[in-house]
Amino acid sequence: MAPHDAAKQNAIDMANARAATTINVAAVRDFLHDGSETWQRHQRIVKILEKEPLFDKSQRLFISRTEQYILGQAKTKRLLVDLKQKHNWSEKDLAVAFAVQDDPLPITLHNVAFEPIFRLQASPELLAKYGDLTAHKAIHGAYLQTELGHGTNVGRLETTATYLPDTREFEIHSPTLTSTKWWIGALGKTATHGVVQAKLILPGGKDMGPHLFFVQLRDLNTHKVLPGLTLGDIGPKAMGAFGATDNGFARFDHVRIPKGNMLSRSAGVTDAGEYITPPHAKLSYGGMLYIRSGMTTSAGWAIGKAATIAIRYTTVRRQGELGADGLERQVLSYPSLNVRLVPMVARAYVFIELGRFLSRGFASLAQGLAAGDVSQLAEMHMMTSGLKVLVSTTAIQDIEGARRAMGGHGYSGFSGVGRLYADYLPAATYEGENYVLDGQVLRAALKSFRGLASTSSPKFSPTSSYVRLLLDKNIVPPQLTASSWNDQTVPILILEWRAALLVNEAAQTAKEPDSTLTQRVSRAVTEAFVAGQVGGMIAALPTKPGLSPKEVDVLRKVYLLYLLTVVEASLVDTLSYGLFRASPAGSADSGPRDPTRALRLAIAALCNTTLLPEIIGLTDAFGFSDWELDSALGVYDGRAYEAMWARAQTEPLNKTEVTEAFEASIKPILLHGRELAAGAAATKSKSKL
Amino acid sequence: MAPHDAAKQNAIDMANARAATTINVAAVRDFLHDGSETWQRHQRIVKILEKEPLFDKSQRLFISRTEQYILGQAKTKRLLVDLKQKHNWSEKDLAVAFAVQDDPLPITLHNVAFEPIFRLQASPELLAKYGDLTAHKAIHGAYLQTELGHGTNVGRLETTATYLPDTREFEIHSPTLTSTKWWIGALGKTATHGVVQAKLILPGGKDMGPHLFFVQLRDLNTHKVLPGLTLGDIGPKAMGAFGATDNGFARFDHVRIPKGNMLSRSAGVTDAGEYITPPHAKLSYGGMLYIRSGMTTSAGWAIGKAATIAIRYTTVRRQGELGADGLERQVLSYPSLNVRLVPMVARAYVFIELGRFLSRGFASLAQGLAAGDVSQLAEMHMMTSGLKVLVSTTAIQDIEGARRAMGGHGYSGFSGVGRLYADYLPAATYEGENYVLDGQVLRAALKSFRGLASTSSPKFSPTSSYVRLLLDKNIVPPQLTASSWNDQTVPILILEWRAALLVNEAAQTAKEPDSTLTQRVSRAVTEAFVAGQVGGMIAALPTKPGLSPKEVDVLRKVYLLYLLTVVEASLVDTLSYGLFRASPAGSADSGPRDPTRALRLAIAALCNTTLLPEIIGLTDAFGFSDWELDSALGVYDGRAYEAMWARAQTEPLNKTEVTEAFEASIKPILLHGRELAAGAAATKSKSKL
Repeated sequence: MAPHDAAKQNAIDMANARAATTINVAAVRDFLHDGSETWQRHQRIVKILEKEPLFDKSQRLFISRTEQYILGQAKTKRLLVDLKQKHNWSEKDLAVAFAVQDDPLPITLHNVAFEPIFRLQASPELLAKYGDLTAHKAIHGAYLQTELGHGTNVGRLETTATYLPDTREFEIHSPTLTSTKWWIGALGKTATHGVVQAKLILPGGKDMGPHLFFVQLRDLNTHKVLPGLTLGDIGPKAMGAFGATDNGFARFDHVRIPKGNMLSRSAGVTDAGEYITPPHAKLSYGGMLYIRSGMTTSAGWAIGKAATIAIRYTTVRRQGELGADGLERQVLSYPSLNVRLVPMVARAYVFIELGRFLSRGFASLAQGLAAGDVSQLAEMHMMTSGLKVLVSTTAIQDIEGARRAMGGHGYSGFSGVGRLYADYLPAATYEGENYVLDGQVLRAALKSFRGLASTSSPKFSPTSSYVRLLLDKNIVPPQLTASSWNDQTVPILILEWRAALLVNEAAQTAKEPDSTLTQRVSRAVTEAFVAGQVGGMIAALPTKPGLSPKEVDVLRKVYLLYLLTVVEASLVDTLSYGLFRASPAGSADSGPRDPTRALRLAIAALCNTTLLPEIIGLTDAFGFSDWELDSALGVYDGRAYEAMWARAQTEPLNKTEVTEAFEASIKPILLHGRELAAGAAATKSKSKL
Repeated sequence: MAPHDAAKQNAIDMANARAATTINVAAVRDFLHDGSETWQRHQRIVKILEKEPLFDKSQRLFISRTEQYILGQAKTKRLLVDLKQKHNWSEKDLAVAFAVQDDPLPITLHNVAFEPIFRLQASPELLAKYGDLTAHKAIHGAYLQTELGHGTNVGRLETTATYLPDTREFEIHSPTLTSTKWWIGALGKTATHGVVQAKLILPGGKDMGPHLFFVQLRDLNTHKVLPGLTLGDIGPKAMGAFGATDNGFARFDHVRIPKGNMLSRSAGVTDAGEYITPPHAKLSYGGMLYIRSGMTTSAGWAIGKAATIAIRYTTVRRQGELGADGLERQVLSYPSLNVRLVPMVARAYVFIELGRFLSRGFASLAQGLAAGDVSQLAEMHMMTSGLKVLVSTTAIQDIEGARRAMGGHGYSGFSGVGRLYADYLPAATYEGENYVLDGQVLRAALKSFRGLASTSSPKFSPTSSYVRLLLDKNIVPPQLTASSWNDQTVPILILEWRAALLVNEAAQTAKEPDSTLTQRVSRAVTEAFVAGQVGGMIAALPTKPGLSPKEVDVLRKVYLLYLLTVVEASLVDTLSYGLFRASPAGSADSGPRDPTRALRLAIAALCNTTLLPEIIGLTDAFGFSDWELDSALGVYDGRAYEAMWARAQTEPLNKTEVTEAFEASIKPILLHGRELAAGAAATKSKSKL
C-alpha cells in the first residue's frame, strides 16, 4: 500500500470542512463588508492588484529596508498616478487599494496625519495656496509633533517658533538634542512639507505653548533638504516592521517662515506680535470618533486575518491521537486549541461591526453636540480612549495567539503572522499610549459616577448606564445558574455589575488607589459599554439584509461567545465582588468546587460543538484572497505543506549549493578540527604503548 | 536662561539613581553569577570580544539574512579556531564566548542537539571512528527529527530506514512530501553529517518505529550535497529572528548507509535482519534535567536583559507631572509603571537561581535513581516540563512587557528588545510545545494525587508536597490579613492550596474536564513547587558567601515580591476556591469591597517604596556591558538620547541626501499632482466667470 499522503489529505480536509458549513457564506461576507457593494469594490481592486508585478508579495521577506522603501514609493506612484487613471478609480477605490496592498507606506501619513490637520487649521489664505496642492499630492506632507524627549506630553514639547515683528516671520528652532522631532512618519526621506508643533514665543519671550506651523522641508525639484534643516531616517523599527515607512527626525536651526504660515484658524498673532485669543475651540469631535472607530474595525480585520490563517492551517494539520477515520486528528478538533481560536473569530466579528455601530450611534449624539449639548462629551471622549486600548491590546494578543496556535510552523516567516504582528504592534502606543489613556478613562468614569450619584434624577447614557446598579439599593446581582450562559442578557448584566463595583471601589479608595485599579476600571467600564453595544448588535441582526434565520442564529452565538469570553477574562473582578459565589475551601467531602465551571463549559460547548462546524465558513466570510493573506499556512485550498515547500525554494540562501561561507569559514574549522582529532588520536595511541 | 538640557540630565539622573542604591552591587553580582570566579571569566571574555571588529553589533539590523549567515560562520571560525588558541580558552571559556556574542549560530545545534545524542547512542565502533572528529568539529552535525508533517508526535514520523540484509545496509528514504525533514538547525547550508530519526523497517516490512541513523550529508572537501539528498534552507523566521541559523530541510531518495551507522547503543539489528530488543532503556535523566534547568536560568537572564534596558531608560526618561525638583517626573517613579517593571527583576532573580537550585537539588534525587528508586521519576520529569512552560511563557511576556513599558522608543530597532523578543520566542515551541507539555503535567499530577490518596502512609516529595493539604481534614487554609503578605510563608501556603484544590477539581471532573483546566492545573502545581523552592532559596540566602545582612534583606524582599505577584496572577483560582473571602455584592452601604486590595497594596509598596531605590543596583548586578545589551535606550551611563541620535545616523537610508526613489517615483507623483491641482484651479476660475 502506498503511504498515506498527508499533502493530498490537506485539500480533502479543507474541502470537507468547507462543505460542513451550514451558513450562507456570501450573505455573511456581505454583512461583514457592510454591504455587497463594498465587497464588490474590494474584490474588484484585489483582482487588479494581485496581477500587478509590483504588488507581488513573494519577495517581501528577502529585501533590505532601503529596497523596501524604494519599492514602497514605486507602489505609491503606481497606484496614485498609473492605476488610478487606468481604472478610473474613485478616492474610495484608491483607499481600498492602499489598504489591501498592506505595506505601511509613507503616503498614509500625508493622508491621515498631515492633510486633515492642515485642512482644519490653516487660514483661508494658506488653504487657497496649498489646499489643492495638498489634495492632489503635489506636495507631500508630514505632521511633526513627537520629539526625541517628549511624546504623550505635548505641553512640554521644546521646539520653538519665535515671532519676529520686524520681518513678520517666525523662526523655528530646535534648542536642544531632545527637541529633535522624532518618529515622524514620511519625514526621513519623503516629505516636502510639514506641519510642525512648536511653542509660540512672542516678543518679550512670552511662551504661549504649542501651536502649529507650516514649513517647507525639501526642494520640490531636487528634493534636497532646505537650508537650516537637518533631516534623516531614525532607523529600523523593532522586528523589521514598517520597513517601507521612513519615520524620520528633524532639527531646525533658526529656520524662518512667513507669518502667514502659522496655522491660524483657531489662534493667531498680530503683526505687532500680540496673541489673538482663539474663539471657543472648535469641536473636531467627529474626526476623532472617525479615527477611533476606524481603529476598532481595523483591529477586527487584523484579528480576522490571523485567525483565518491559524484556523485553516489547524484544519489541515493532523497530529496526535487517531480519530474515527483512522488518521491522526485534525488539531483544530482538540478543545484546548479551538477554545483559543474560535473566540478570536468572535472578537473579529464584534470589532468589525462595533466600529460601524459606533459611527452610526455617535452620529446622532453628534447632532446633540451640534445643538449645544456637551454634557456627555468628556465621557464619550474617554470611552473611545478606552475602546482604543481594548481593541489594540486584544488584537496584539490574538495575532500572537494565532501564531502560537500553529506550533513550530507559526514561527516561519512564510506563516505571514509574524509580519502582521510586528506591523500591528505600535497600535498600543500611537494615538495615545495605552497606559496613559487608561488613566484618562478612570478619571472620566469617576467624574461621571460622582455626577450621577449627586443628582436626584440621573440621566444615564450608553457609556454610564452601569452606574444605575449602584444607585438603586433594590437592584441585586443575578443569581447564576448553568443556563445563565445561554443568552446575552446575563453576561451583559454581569459586566455592568463589574464596572459599577470597580468604579465604586475606585471612588472609595481614591486617596490610596492600588496601582492595578486604573487599568482594571478602564477595562471594566469599556467592556460594560461594549457589552451593551453587542446587545444592540444582536438585536439588530434580524434587520440585516440578506441574513436568513440560520445566519442570524449563528451570528448571535458568535456574539454570545464574545460576551462569555469577556466574562471569563474578567473573573478576578467578578469573583472578588461575589458575583460568582465561591465555595469556601475545605467545605465539602470532595473539597470545594469551581464556581466558574458552568461558564467555562458553556464557552467550550460553543467553540467545540456549536461553532466548530461553521468556522471555515465564518473565516471564509472575511473574504481574504491568498494574495491578501500572503501565508503559506493559510492558503484557501488547504494545501499548506505544498505551499511551504514552494516558498522555501525561493529563499536566497538556496541560490547556490555551496555558500561562500564554506571556503571562508567552515572548511578552516573542519581542517582545524581534523588536526586536533589526529593529535588526540596520536596521544591516545601513545598512552596505549 | 539656557533651556533645560534633558540629554545632560540623563547622566545626572542615572548617577543619582546609582548612588541611591544601598546594596553592595558587586556582592550581589557575584551571587547572581554563581560566584566571583564565574563572573571574572564572563568579564574577561566580554572584554576580549567587544574589541573584536567581527563581533561589533552596530550593523546587525542592516544586513541581509544571507549576510547574517555568512557573518555567523565567520564568527564561529574566529571563536573556534583563532581566539580559542590565542587566549588559550577552555571549553567553558568558549561556551561563555558563544553565549555573550548572542547571535544564534548553527554550531549550537552541533553542540546541543547532535553531539549529545551521538555520544549517548552510537555504538563503540561508530564512536571510535567519529567521536574525536565530532568533539573537535572536524565534522559538523545536525539532528534530523522534525518533519514537515510531524513535530511533537515523534511516533508518527514518516521517514523510513529499510534494512537490506543482502548488502547489510539501511536505505533512508522520504516517501512523501510531508516526510521531508524540516526546521532542522544547521542543516540548510552547514552540516556535513546528521543523526536522522527514521522508522526502522525490517525484512518482511515489519515497522519497528523510530530509530536513529548516522548519515553523511555533504562532502567534507567540496561541501557539495551527497547524491540522493535534497537539502536547503527553509527560509526566514518570523520577525527576522535567527537570521544566522540555517534551519533546513532534507529529502532522502533511497540513500544507503552501512549497517554500522545505526545508532545501536540501545537497539540493533542482526546481519540477517532480526531486531535486537534493547536492554531496559538507560535513564538519561541527568541530561534532560540539565537542559531544562539551563532553560530556567537562561530565561532569567533574558528577562534580566530586557528589564535592565527598560529600567535604565525609564529612570532617565522624564514625562508628565512636575516633581519636587521642578522637572517632569522620571517615568519609573509612576506606580503604574514600576509595578510592571520591578517584578520582572524579581522573576529574573528567581529563575537564575532556581535553575541552579534545581540542578543541585535533583543531583541528590538522581543518586536515589541510581540506587534503583524510580518512584518519583515520572513526577519529576513532568515537573520539569511544567517549569519549561512556566519560564518560557513568563520570559516572552516580560520581554514584550519591558519593550512596551518604554513607550514609543521601545518600538525602535535600536532599543534592542525587539530582537531579544523575536529570538527568544521559539522557546514556547521547542523542547516540547507548551500546550502539549501542560497535558503531560496534568496527567502526572493526577496520577501522583491518586497514588498518594490511596495509600495509608503517603510519602510527599517536593513536587507533590501540596497534596498533604487534601489528605488531612484538620488542615484549613490560612486566614488572610493585611500582614499576611509580609513574609513568604503565607503566599507559599496559598499557592500550595491552590494547586491542591485544582488537582482535586481535575480529579472530580476527569470525565468532563473544562478546556481551560489543563493549563490551570499545570501552572498551579508548577508554581506550588517553585514557591516551595523559593522558600528554600530564601532560607539559604544567609549562607551565601559575600552577602551581608543588607543584601540578604533586599534579596529576601525580591523573592517575596516574586511570590506575591504569582499569587496575584493566580487570583482567579484562589478566589474561586474561597482562599480569599469575596464580599457579596450589595452587602454594605458603601458597596462590597475588593478582598485582593491588601495583596495589591503590598506589591505596590515593595515596588514603589522598598525596592525602587535599589533597582538600578539590582539591574547593574546582572553585569551586562553596553556591548552585551546592544541597546541605545539601556546604556549604562544613562545617555539614551545621545545614543539614539548616534545610532540613527548609521541608518543606511541616510547615506544619501536624496534617495533614488525621488526621480523614479516621488517626482512623478508631485508633477502629476501639480497638473491635477492646476486643472482644479482652472475649473474653479472658469466656474467663477
